[in-house]
Amino acid sequence: MAGYAWISLTTDYGTFDGFVAACHGSIARIAPEVRVIDVTHHVPPADVARGAAVLAQTAPHLPPSVHVAVVDPGVGTARRGIALATPNGVLVGPDNGLLIWAAEALGGIERAHELANKDWFPTAVSSTFHGRDIFAPAAARIAAGAGLDEAGPAVDSDTLVRLPAPVVTVGDGWLEAEVLTVDRFGNVQLAATGDMLRGLGAELLINGTVSARRGTTFADVDKGELLVFEDSAGHAAIAVNNGRAVVVLSVRPGDVVKIAVRQ
Amino acid sequence: MAGYAWISLTTDYGTFDGFVAACHGSIARIAPEVRVIDVTHHVPPADVARGAAVLAQTAPHLPPSVHVAVVDPGVGTARRGIALATPNGVLVGPDNGLLIWAAEALGGIERAHELANKDWFPTAVSSTFHGRDIFAPAAARIAAGAGLDEAGPAVDSDTLVRLPAPVVTVGDGWLEAEVLTVDRFGNVQLAATGDMLRGLGAELLINGTVSARRGTTFADVDKGELLVFEDSAGHAAIAVNNGRAVVVLSVRPGDVVKIAVRQ
Amino acid sequence: MAGYAWISLTTDYGTFDGFVAACHGSIARIAPEVRVIDVTHHVPPADVARGAAVLAQTAPHLPPSVHVAVVDPGVGTARRGIALATPNGVLVGPDNGLLIWAAEALGGIERAHELANKDWFPTAVSSTFHGRDIFAPAAARIAAGAGLDEAGPAVDSDTLVRLPAPVVTVGDGWLEAEVLTVDRFGNVQLAATGDMLRGLGAELLINGTVSARRGTTFADVDKGELLVFEDSAGHAAIAVNNGRAVVVLSVRPGDVVKIAVRQ
Repeated sequence: MAGYAWISLTTDYGTFDGFVAACHGSIARIAPEVRVIDVTHHVPPADVARGAAVLAQTAPHLPPSVHVAVVDPGVGTARRGIALATPNGVLVGPDNGLLIWAAEALGGIERAHELANKDWFPTAVSSTFHGRDIFAPAAARIAAGAGLDEAGPAVDSDTLVRLPAPVVTVGDGWLEAEVLTVDRFGNVQLAATGDMLRGLGAELLINGTVSARRGTTFADVDKGELLVFEDSAGHAAIAVNNGRAVVVLSVRPGDVVKIAVRQ
Repeated sequence: MAGYAWISLTTDYGTFDGFVAACHGSIARIAPEVRVIDVTHHVPPADVARGAAVLAQTAPHLPPSVHVAVVDPGVGTARRGIALATPNGVLVGPDNGLLIWAAEALGGIERAHELANKDWFPTAVSSTFHGRDIFAPAAARIAAGAGLDEAGPAVDSDTLVRLPAPVVTVGDGWLEAEVLTVDRFGNVQLAATGDMLRGLGAELLINGTVSARRGTTFADVDKGELLVFEDSAGHAAIAVNNGRAVVVLSVRPGDVVKIAVRQ
Repeated sequence: MAGYAWISLTTDYGTFDGFVAACHGSIARIAPEVRVIDVTHHVPPADVARGAAVLAQTAPHLPPSVHVAVVDPGVGTARRGIALATPNGVLVGPDNGLLIWAAEALGGIERAHELANKDWFPTAVSSTFHGRDIFAPAAARIAAGAGLDEAGPAVDSDTLVRLPAPVVTVGDGWLEAEVLTVDRFGNVQLAATGDMLRGLGAELLINGTVSARRGTTFADVDKGELLVFEDSAGHAAIAVNNGRAVVVLSVRPGDVVKIAVRQ
C-alpha cells in the first residue's frame, strides 16, 4: 500500500467547462485523502508537444505524485491508455507521446502498463471523456496503493508512441534550436539546454539580425534589450527586459532560432 | 452531524479578482476540514442558464457535496437565497433558477429552505457579494453538519424560480433542439438527450445544409467532417474532427439546430 | 511551533504555464499538511499596484495564513525578499511595495525580516523564478512553524519600498479619486473609501458629464443606469446595472475620476 499522497493534472480542458472538476470528482470518489495539484488546463487543444513540455518541466518540482495528463485528440480510438512507472512517480494518460518527456525528467521509464482492467472504470465509459472515466480513476487507484500490474498487461516501452525530438544543432560559435514554448511573459524557451550557451560568449546575434546579450536575469540588460539566459527549467531562453521576446522575434513554437557569436 | 466533506463552487466571478479566494476563505474560516472543488468560475457574467447547465452536468460526478453556485445579477434585491436538499447533496445559491437543473440531476428536490438565519452570516453583509457573505458561509455550516431547518424557513418548492425549459422537438426523421452550451473544443451541445438520436440513422443533415455522420467519437469521421454523437454528459452534440463545430455551424447558445435524416 | 494551516498565493504567473504548480510543489514538499488558497494568478505581468490591491482586499477574508505574493519584475537583482509579520498573518514576497497594503489591511507591520537564510532554499536557486525557489519555500517553513528571525536579519520597516499612495481628494460636494481596479463585471473601484461618499447625496455627476445615483446594489438603478456605491471591499465604486461601467466611463486603473453633487 505504498501509493502516493498527491495527484497532478495537466490537460487541454480549459476552465470554462466542468471537465476539470469532473476529474477532481473521479479522484475524490475513489481516493478522498489524495490531494490534487493542477499543473495547467490551458494546453492549447490537442497540442500534445506543449502538454508534454509543461509537464516535463513541472513534475520534478512536485512531491512524489501520480501525474495525470490528458491531451488526447485520439480519445475513443484504439490508442492505448498507459501508466508509466519512474523512480520518482507514476505517469498516467494516453499513449501518444504526451508522457515520455516527463518520464525522462523523472528518471526514466521503469515499467509501462496498459490501462485495461475494466474493474477500475465505471460501467459506462464515455467515448469522448477518458480523463473523467479512465485516467483520473486509474490515477486514484494507483495513488491509493494499487500496483501497475493490476492496471493491465505490461507494455514493451519500445512500443510506446514518442514525439519527434525537437531540432537542436550546435556548431562552432552558434546553435540552432526549436522554440519549445513561449511563456506568459513572452519569454521564448528553446529546446537547447542552458549549458549549450556556454561557448558563445556575452555578445550574441539572434537569427542573424537581432543583437542580444548573455546574462542570468532580466535586469542584466537595459529595458527593451534582449537577454539570452538559462531559464528556471534549465533551458536556453530569450527574454526582453520589460518586454516580450516573442513579439520582438516574431516566433512561435516549432520555429527554429539561431543564436550566434556577434562578430 | 452528518455533513459533507466537500463543497463545490460554480460562479461567474472569473479568476482575475480575489472574489473566488474570498469564498474559499469564508469556507475555511467556518469549516476548515472541508475541501473545495472549483467547478468553474468562468460562467459568462449573469448567464444563469449557462451556470445551471455546467453545474447540472458536473455535480453528479463529484463526491456527495454542498454545491454553491453564484450567478446572481439580482444580488442585494429581494430575491431569496436558498438551500435545496437532494438525495445526493445540497445546493446553495440564489433563487433564480440556477440550482434547479442540478437538483434534478442529483435526484430531485427533497426540501427547500430560505437562507434567513442572520446568525450564520457576518454582522455586515455586503449588498453586492453574497457569495462571500451568505452562500459560502451557509454551505460551510451545512457541510459542518447544520440542518437545513436551521438555515431558515421551509420554502414550497413550487414557488422556486425556474428557467424556461430549452426547446426540444422530435419529429419523424428529425429533431430540433436548442444549443445548450459550446465547450472549449468548439463542440456544440444540444438540449436534446443522446437517445433522441437513435431513430435518425447514420447519415444526417444539419440545418438543412450541412452533412454529418452519426458516431461515438471524433475519429469516427474524417478530419474536418461533422460528427453527431452522444456526449459525455448524455446530450446530443455536434463536433468536427480536428476542428470547431461552433465555427462550422455558426451557432451560439439559445439558437435552435435541426438534425434530420439525409435523403 | 505555532505556524499556519494555510498559505495564499497571489502572482502574475498566469495559468498557462506550470509556474503556479511548481510553487504548490515547493510548498507540498516542505509542508505537506498546509493547504493553499490561490488568490489570483492573473495580475497583469509586472503590475505591482494591481497585485497589491487584490491581495489587500482579499487577505482579511482568509483564515490566518502566510500570504505569498510574487509580482516581481526585479527578480534576480539586489531587491530584497522579505517576510512581514502582522497581527493577522505573515506576508512573503519581494520588497517592491507589493505587500504593504495587505500588511496594513491585516493590522500593520509588526516586524520585517529579510529572506537571507540559504538553508531554507534549494542549493541551485534560479535567477528568474524566486516564487518557486525562495518565496514558496520560505512561506512553507514559516507555515510549518519557523520564526521570522530564522529567515534572516530584521529589516527596519522604514526602509521598505512603498508604492505611491493613490490620489484621493475630497472637496465640498465632490471627490476625486484614482481608479484602483476594474473587476470582471466592469465595475470601477476607486481608491476612495465608501464613507467618503456620504456627504454627496443621491444624485451625482461623474466627470462633469455622466449622471449617476447613489445606492447600495445594482438593481437600485434602472438597467443601463450608473450606480455609485460602497463595494464589498469598502471602497467607493461605480457600476452600471446590467452593463459595464468601465466601458461607459472609458477609464482604466490610474485615471482620476470626479464624483460631484448633481445641481
